[in-house]
Amino acid sequence: MGEQKPLYIKVNEKDNVVIVVNEGGLPAGTVFADGFTLTGDVPQGHKAALVAIPRGGNIVRYGQVIGYAAHDIPKGSWIDESLVELPEAPDVNELIYTPRHEKPQAPLAGYTFAGFRNPDGSAGTKNLLGIHTSVQCVAGVLDIAVQRIREELLPKYPNVDDVVALKHNYGCGVAINAPDAVVPIRSIANLARHPNFGGELMVVSLGCEKMQPEVVTEDNPQASIVRLQEEAGFKASVERILHEAEKILVRLNQRQRETCPLSDLVIGLQCGGSDAFSGVTSNPAVGYAADLLVRAGATVMFSEVTEVRDGIDLLLPKAANAEVGKRLLDAMRWYDNYLAKGEVDRSANPAPGNKKGGLSNIVEKALGSIAKGGTSTIREVIAPGERPVKKGLIYAATPASDFVCGTCQLASGIHLQVFTTGRGTPYGLAIVPVIKVSSRSVLAKKWPDLIDVDAGRIATGDATIESVGKEIFELIIDIASGRRQSWAQQWKIYNDLCLFNPAPVT
Amino acid sequence: MGEQKPLYIKVNEKDNVVIVVNEGGLPAGTVFADGFTLTGDVPQGHKAALVAIPRGGNIVRYGQVIGYAAHDIPKGSWIDESLVELPEAPDVNELIYTPRHEKPQAPLAGYTFAGFRNPDGSAGTKNLLGIHTSVQCVAGVLDIAVQRIREELLPKYPNVDDVVALKHNYGCGVAINAPDAVVPIRSIANLARHPNFGGELMVVSLGCEKMQPEVVTEDNPQASIVRLQEEAGFKASVERILHEAEKILVRLNQRQRETCPLSDLVIGLQCGGSDAFSGVTSNPAVGYAADLLVRAGATVMFSEVTEVRDGIDLLLPKAANAEVGKRLLDAMRWYDNYLAKGEVDRSANPAPGNKKGGLSNIVEKALGSIAKGGTSTIREVIAPGERPVKKGLIYAATPASDFVCGTCQLASGIHLQVFTTGRGTPYGLAIVPVIKVSSRSVLAKKWPDLIDVDAGRIATGDATIESVGKEIFELIIDIASGRRQSWAQQWKIYNDLCLFNPAPVT
Repeated sequence: MGEQKPLYIKVNEKDNVVIVVNEGGLPAGTVFADGFTLTGDVPQGHKAALVAIPRGGNIVRYGQVIGYAAHDIPKGSWIDESLVELPEAPDVNELIYTPRHEKPQAPLAGYTFAGFRNPDGSAGTKNLLGIHTSVQCVAGVLDIAVQRIREELLPKYPNVDDVVALKHNYGCGVAINAPDAVVPIRSIANLARHPNFGGELMVVSLGCEKMQPEVVTEDNPQASIVRLQEEAGFKASVERILHEAEKILVRLNQRQRETCPLSDLVIGLQCGGSDAFSGVTSNPAVGYAADLLVRAGATVMFSEVTEVRDGIDLLLPKAANAEVGKRLLDAMRWYDNYLAKGEVDRSANPAPGNKKGGLSNIVEKALGSIAKGGTSTIREVIAPGERPVKKGLIYAATPASDFVCGTCQLASGIHLQVFTTGRGTPYGLAIVPVIKVSSRSVLAKKWPDLIDVDAGRIATGDATIESVGKEIFELIIDIASGRRQSWAQQWKIYNDLCLFNPAPVT
Repeated sequence: MGEQKPLYIKVNEKDNVVIVVNEGGLPAGTVFADGFTLTGDVPQGHKAALVAIPRGGNIVRYGQVIGYAAHDIPKGSWIDESLVELPEAPDVNELIYTPRHEKPQAPLAGYTFAGFRNPDGSAGTKNLLGIHTSVQCVAGVLDIAVQRIREELLPKYPNVDDVVALKHNYGCGVAINAPDAVVPIRSIANLARHPNFGGELMVVSLGCEKMQPEVVTEDNPQASIVRLQEEAGFKASVERILHEAEKILVRLNQRQRETCPLSDLVIGLQCGGSDAFSGVTSNPAVGYAADLLVRAGATVMFSEVTEVRDGIDLLLPKAANAEVGKRLLDAMRWYDNYLAKGEVDRSANPAPGNKKGGLSNIVEKALGSIAKGGTSTIREVIAPGERPVKKGLIYAATPASDFVCGTCQLASGIHLQVFTTGRGTPYGLAIVPVIKVSSRSVLAKKWPDLIDVDAGRIATGDATIESVGKEIFELIIDIASGRRQSWAQQWKIYNDLCLFNPAPVT
C-alpha cells in the first residue's frame, strides 16, 4: 500500500525537516495529507524543509542539530547536502559521564537455539574446519589444499559444514613491535579462537615469518602447526595439510547440534551503504531486535567509530558506569588521533552513495547508525578484535569500513551478523551467517535473492518497527540453529578477511 | 662437491668476518684450507671472526661496517647477532649526490622474446582476462562468477591463459582524501593497465563506494563496468559478469605470441626469507642477470625501501643524475617519516628467519639485498605503484614485505618477477610468472618442486655468479615467451594482492 500517496517521515517532535518516502521522489507542488507542500522536487530519502530555515539556522533531525543552513532555506524546498554545514564534533575532552539508562525491560525467558557445544563451554552456529595462517606467504599453497579438502575430504564428513582458509596480509614485512601492532595480532589470535571452529586449531605457517604461529596457538597445546619450510616442497606441503585437516574433520564430524540458551549467542550489528531511511526503518528495527536479544540473555555488539563519533554525547550516558564511559571516550580519542596522523578527519565518512541516499553528512549518518544498538545499557567497550567478557550490549570500537568491521567482529567472536543496507551490498562472511535487512522496499524488490528482511515496509506503514524487529529476532534464532539459511549463506557469498592494521608495513 | 670440506666465504678484501658455507654448520676446532681455525661452533650461513675484534670495534662485511662489537670477539669465534650493535643509518639530509657510475658494458643485441602485442604498443607475457574491482564489497560475488567463467567459458577460448579476479581491501571505508591515499588508488588504477590483460578492461563495482570505478577506467573509454547495484540481485549479477567477460574472451582468444625485442620487457626483482648466503650467491647472480637484461634493452626494477635504507650511501652514487638522486633520498625520507608516525624504526626489519639464517641486522641484510640490482646506473626512481617512463635499471620505493612489494611491482607493470630466497617461500603471483632462486643448495634439494634455480652452487664452487646469472637470464626469456613454466606457474600458486595503503581506514 501507500506507494502512490505522498508520504514523509518526521522522526522527532523537534525536527524541522522531513524525509520523502515515495519511490522516485516527489515533484514540486506535491501536497501531503496535512497540507504541507513541496516547493521543489525532492528525491526519495532526501530532506524537505518543514519550515523556513534562515542562513546559519539549525537543521534538526532525530531531535538533534545535524548542521547549519548554508543559505536561507525556504519552507517546502529540498535540503541538498550542499546546504548543510557540518557542526563541530563533540569534544571528547569536555564530555562528562552522566548516566541516563532506560528502565530495564523484563527478561525474556524460554528462548533457545540449536548450537554446537564446544569444549570450553561456548557454542557455535556452524561446524567449520578453520585453517589459520601466520603469514600471507602460505596463502597460495593453502588455497590449493583447501580446494582439495573440499573436493576429496569433506564429502566423507557430512556433519562438517565447510572448510575455511583464514588468509590475511599480515605476519611479515610489518612493524611487529609498533604500539598499534597489537590490533592485527590480537585479531588473528582471536579469529583462531572463534567458536564456530569447535575448539579445534590448525595453523599453516611458513617458518621464518615475524609473527610466529605460537601467537595463535599459545593457549591451545593440542593445536596442529604445519610449517611449510619443514616440508619437502609443494606436493609434500599440500599432502601434509590434508593429513592434518583430516584428523580434525574426523572429530568435527562427530558433533551434533544441541539446545543452548540465548546467553551463548553473540550477535554483531553493522550497516553498509546507508541512506536516509536506514535511521528510521532498518536500524530501529534491528535496535528493537537487539533489545529482545539482550532481554533474552544474549550479547549484542555494535561498532563503527566514525559512525558514532558525532553522536557520542548521546551514547555516553548509556555506558553502564564511569569506567565504561571512560573506555568509550578513550576509543573516540584514539581514533581522532589515528585520523589526524593520516591528516584527515571524520568528514572522510560518508561515501558518495550515502549522500545520494539523502544523508547529508556524518552527523546525520551517525544519528541513524546509533539506532541499531537499541535502548540497552552499554555493558562493555572493547578495542578492535578484542573479545568481550560481559554479556548484554557491547560497543566494539572498530573502523566503519564494512569488511574491516566485519573481520574485527569475527575476531570478537560474533556468531551471526545482522547487516542493514540502504543502497545495497551483497556482503557475506564465510565463518558466520549474515542476515541482510534493507532500509527501503525498492531494494528488497530489486534484490529478492540477496535481501533477507525488508524494513522499508515500516516507511510505507505496511509494518512497524516492532513487527520487523520481532521478525529479525526470530530469523536470527532460526539461522543460528541451522533451520534456515540467509541468502548470503545459500549462495556462499564470502568476502575476504580484511584485518585492521593501524601500524606500518616495513 | 665440497659439502664435506670446510668452506667459508669472504666477500671483500676488507672483511674481518667470513660466512660458514657447510650444511649443518661447522664445529669448534674446524681447520680451513688456509689454516684459519674455528674456536667455537658456527651454524651454516653465520659469521666467524677472521681476526680478534675488540669491544666497540668495526665488524666489516661486503667491505662495509655492518655494526660494532658489543664485547671483545676472539678470533675464530661465532659472531652471534647479539654481538653486533646496530650502526646509525646514513642521514639522508647530509648525503650529497656524487655520481659514481660503472663503465657501461656493450649493448647485447639479438635477444628477443615471444610476447602478446598490445594495442598501446606494450607487450604481455601472458594472455589473461583480468576482472578488476573498485571495492571489496563485490569480492564474494566476483569469486563465484570467476569460478563459473573458469569452468564454463574458458574451455571455449583455449588461447586465453586464465581469468584473474583483482580483489583488494580498498575502495570504501577509507580516507580517500588523505594525502597518502594516492598510493593505493594509483596502484589499483595501474593494476588495471597491466600489459598481461591485453588492453582490455573490465571492472566490477558496487555503485555507492567511495572510490568510483572511473578511477580505474578513465583512460579507457571502451572499458566495461558492471555495477552490482544496477543489477537485479545475485543471480543477475553473476550472469551479467559472465556476459561481459565473454565479450572480452572472444577478443583475447584471437591473440598470438609474436617476436618482441627485450626492450618490451619489465622484470621485477625481489627477495624474501633472506639469509647470509643471499648476498653472496642468489642476489649477485640475479644482479648479473639484471646487467645482461639492461644491456639487452630491458627494464629491471628493484625495490624494498627498508632493505636498501642502510646502504643508501652506496646506492646514491648509482643514480643517473642529481634529480634521480634527489628522488631516491626523498623516497627514503618519506619512509623514515612513515615509520616514525607508527613509532618504529628500521630495526623492525629483519625477521626472525633472517636472523636464524645468519643476518645479524638490517645493515647486513641491506648490503646483500642491493646486490640484486647489478652494476647499472639507476635511470629512474618511482613511488609505490607508479609506472616507470624510463628503461634500464629502475628503483621502485616500495615496502619490503614480499606480498606488498609484489603487488606494487605488478602495478608498476612488471612482466615477470625473479624472487631470491634463503629460508624458502612458495610465493607466486596470478598475473605474472615468478622464478624462484635459492641462495643455498640445501633449500633447492629440499624443495625440488618449488625452487627454479639453485644459486647455492656458487658457494660450494660448483657454479659461478656469471654462470648462474646467465642461466637466470635465459630462463627469464624462456618463461616470458611461454616456452617454459616456473614451478609456481605449474602449480598455480597465487598469493593474494596486498595493496600498500599508508592512509587511514575510516
